[in-house]
Amino acid sequence: MFESAELGHKIDKASYDETVPVLRADLLDAQYDVGALKKFPVLILINGVEGAGKGETVNILNAWMDPRHILTHAFADASDEERERPFMWRFWQALPPKGKVGILFGNWYSDPILRHARGECKTAQLDQRIEEINRFEAMLAQEGVLVLKFWFHLSKSAQKDRLKTLSKDPDGAWRVTDHEWELYKMYDRFRAVSEHVLRHTSSAHAPWIVVEGADARYRYVTVGRILLDAMRKRLAQEERGWHSRVNAAPLPPATDTRDLLNTLVLRQKLAKEDYAKQLEKCQGRLAMLSRHARFRNHAVAVVLEGMDAAGKGGVIRRLTCALDARQYRVIPIAAPTEEERAQPYLWRFWRQVPRKARVAIFDRSWYGRVLVERVEGFCAEPDWMRAYAEINDFEDQLVRDGIVVAKFWMAISQEEQLKRFQEREKTRFKRFKITDEDWRNREKWDGYEHAVCDMIDRTSTEIAPWTLVEADNKYFARIKVLKTLCERIEQALY
Amino acid sequence: MFESAELGHKIDKASYDETVPVLRADLLDAQYDVGALKKFPVLILINGVEGAGKGETVNILNAWMDPRHILTHAFADASDEERERPFMWRFWQALPPKGKVGILFGNWYSDPILRHARGECKTAQLDQRIEEINRFEAMLAQEGVLVLKFWFHLSKSAQKDRLKTLSKDPDGAWRVTDHEWELYKMYDRFRAVSEHVLRHTSSAHAPWIVVEGADARYRYVTVGRILLDAMRKRLAQEERGWHSRVNAAPLPPATDTRDLLNTLVLRQKLAKEDYAKQLEKCQGRLAMLSRHARFRNHAVAVVLEGMDAAGKGGVIRRLTCALDARQYRVIPIAAPTEEERAQPYLWRFWRQVPRKARVAIFDRSWYGRVLVERVEGFCAEPDWMRAYAEINDFEDQLVRDGIVVAKFWMAISQEEQLKRFQEREKTRFKRFKITDEDWRNREKWDGYEHAVCDMIDRTSTEIAPWTLVEADNKYFARIKVLKTLCERIEQALY
Repeated sequence: MFESAELGHKIDKASYDETVPVLRADLLDAQYDVGALKKFPVLILINGVEGAGKGETVNILNAWMDPRHILTHAFADASDEERERPFMWRFWQALPPKGKVGILFGNWYSDPILRHARGECKTAQLDQRIEEINRFEAMLAQEGVLVLKFWFHLSKSAQKDRLKTLSKDPDGAWRVTDHEWELYKMYDRFRAVSEHVLRHTSSAHAPWIVVEGADARYRYVTVGRILLDAMRKRLAQEERGWHSRVNAAPLPPATDTRDLLNTLVLRQKLAKEDYAKQLEKCQGRLAMLSRHARFRNHAVAVVLEGMDAAGKGGVIRRLTCALDARQYRVIPIAAPTEEERAQPYLWRFWRQVPRKARVAIFDRSWYGRVLVERVEGFCAEPDWMRAYAEINDFEDQLVRDGIVVAKFWMAISQEEQLKRFQEREKTRFKRFKITDEDWRNREKWDGYEHAVCDMIDRTSTEIAPWTLVEADNKYFARIKVLKTLCERIEQALY
Repeated sequence: MFESAELGHKIDKASYDETVPVLRADLLDAQYDVGALKKFPVLILINGVEGAGKGETVNILNAWMDPRHILTHAFADASDEERERPFMWRFWQALPPKGKVGILFGNWYSDPILRHARGECKTAQLDQRIEEINRFEAMLAQEGVLVLKFWFHLSKSAQKDRLKTLSKDPDGAWRVTDHEWELYKMYDRFRAVSEHVLRHTSSAHAPWIVVEGADARYRYVTVGRILLDAMRKRLAQEERGWHSRVNAAPLPPATDTRDLLNTLVLRQKLAKEDYAKQLEKCQGRLAMLSRHARFRNHAVAVVLEGMDAAGKGGVIRRLTCALDARQYRVIPIAAPTEEERAQPYLWRFWRQVPRKARVAIFDRSWYGRVLVERVEGFCAEPDWMRAYAEINDFEDQLVRDGIVVAKFWMAISQEEQLKRFQEREKTRFKRFKITDEDWRNREKWDGYEHAVCDMIDRTSTEIAPWTLVEADNKYFARIKVLKTLCERIEQALY
């Protein structure tokens, strides 16, 4: 879930100075419109790792907008008054009324995450809290509150750097106490717990927005843009005279040009002979694993996604070569049949859940809803927005049952795709592989890339991570998939 | 939650014979329309206590409708195929497609409830399962599935009678095995666990419908009517061309004339002198309790609801007499202020949550949403439907924090109300108490009674039960409230 927030997003000073005056003016206008309309409040939750600039961001928001209409609450330890009331009482007191913006800094998420990271409560208890939070936020959404949940993230090394820099700075040193270093020591544990909480509380009406906290300018502009976007979108809905009762929260617009895909080096080197050697080794390894005694308590679901001509078919052939034919099934996913359309979306994938000791290879998968169906508009926004959480739930159930879920995004460049399309048209036995539709999809390349980045951010989890495969070189891509798959199975078996 | 299902509902043979032919024909028609439209499936869940006629009801539904379009699944122990897949897999396989009716008998609720009742899993684990179920059913609702969840209930004595009768009957004896008697022995535990599960899974889109299982005719007609109603309501929505994405499930129509209110004997006896003596005793008891050392870790929220002129004011005066003025607050609830309307519904009640060692007396309360707002149409159906679950959540948080939530419905007859209205008009100092609105509300008596019964069924929980107070005799009513309140506080303190 934190992949996109570890790319080193940055905005240089010149473009920052150019962007901010416009953004500030727009934010003020939007804030004024929200205040004049008085139809909904805006609730901003600020959470994340220590040192990721949460406090500064709150200050900037207050500076950019009219602070008289922003209610900022920072929750530290409970007061006497608060301790004598149920846990949620103080948060209820802090809810902004319609027309106002409320910023809750240290909110109902802080205590459950910290307590669990410190080992003070069990997973099952944490999950009870999560359930309560979900019900509470669903109620807020139904009541018309526009909820924006920001998670400020730093990689472990970035957090260390940041704490060190602050300690050395005479103006910042006071901010770094033992408490901050204690949190740094717990980084891995804190990250795992946060991931769990974010995954289970990222709903269609109030998804988490993960913001990389390393660069201050990037952080401010990103939060400002998302907030502006969300307010404008909701104002437009209200002006229309009605708004859907199942609002999907807005997805963040791109602030800089960096994303998960364009930071990949798509053409990796691997010579044909090296490939042949490695392939044999990998296939042998996979064959052994699939015949391992302990494999009888497990199963594998391989998910292959990628643009057209990304080389999914080639990978599948290399996988199946290593497996016993009675053991695997390749499941090509196309448009749903009539029978499948008569059922909830995930039904057709539940049918294909592999039995113990089997391997199911999905050539495209349940991610169709947040890729093709989203980009082509086959499905309404609230539906694909809720699909992220439903898919996470689905994979959670598979993994808990011992199934290894290995998901691969085969990433190719537009140039490489063009080359492969042209080759296919020339080669007789490959001609069936290319249709007019393939050419049309190519035109929506940017839309697809955006959807892929969102998908990875929202569904790459500790229990079922995505692997991005640089696939301009087919040899390299195939070896990466095979190796990763073997590693994932080994993790499950040993 | 089971109050309405312990009233001894019954339908006599003559009216049954008259009702059934029409009901069957209507059900068949509706089933045919659902099948022809193919826009949504109907999913019926059958759960409840042993011996409450679950199996027979499923048989009747199959007999009354066209069984070729009903998919009935009874889930017993998992097969090999099923054990090798995640827990939910077999239920996904059993979902009915659009246009069909699916009956799941022994479903995703059976295993969690039974395992917890047997002590095989902890409450926190049960709550994890509940959370998964809630997400799953929310998804079904979003996907357009019409979900009807029936809970067949029997009181403990009714269950015993039923098992005995069956054992003696040569045709029924095979049904009563050691397993059934084992379940009977666990009755209290099973009831408590079921109540917990029902409370947490009764959502606006898929609330539980509790049906008394003792009388077969009542059971069949009730289930048939509810099913018919639900299908017709949904068909009407589909015909309108669109349907809300947050469908509220239909509330059951009344099948016989028995309900929680009209089975009360409203005029109870208590002479004035006895009253004076008992009042003094009760007030003394309450005074002592409120000064008890352990009371410092608790608080009390008294909720008084009732028709106009039911005597709430009189009760409040008798309560406050016994308390220290610094300790209690009387909170009259009228129409919300502008400030309150700018917040989520429960906000104004969260403000009034009492501190430790205090008593908050609510003259009308958060139940306004499911009473006056529902009956007068001040609030849309999906909103008051979700309020039941939100209120249960709210009270759950209060109780967990040590607050005693004591809820009283002051029940008077229409005749008694009329008498009191007329008195008020005659007595000068009481004249301010009666307005035109009071006369108007009287006209909606039946609507209010129906809403009250629904309210009690959906919000009377083990942790915060409703007390129905027979209030035609004011003396009796006051003593009952005081006594019950003392008992509830004593339970919390000792």
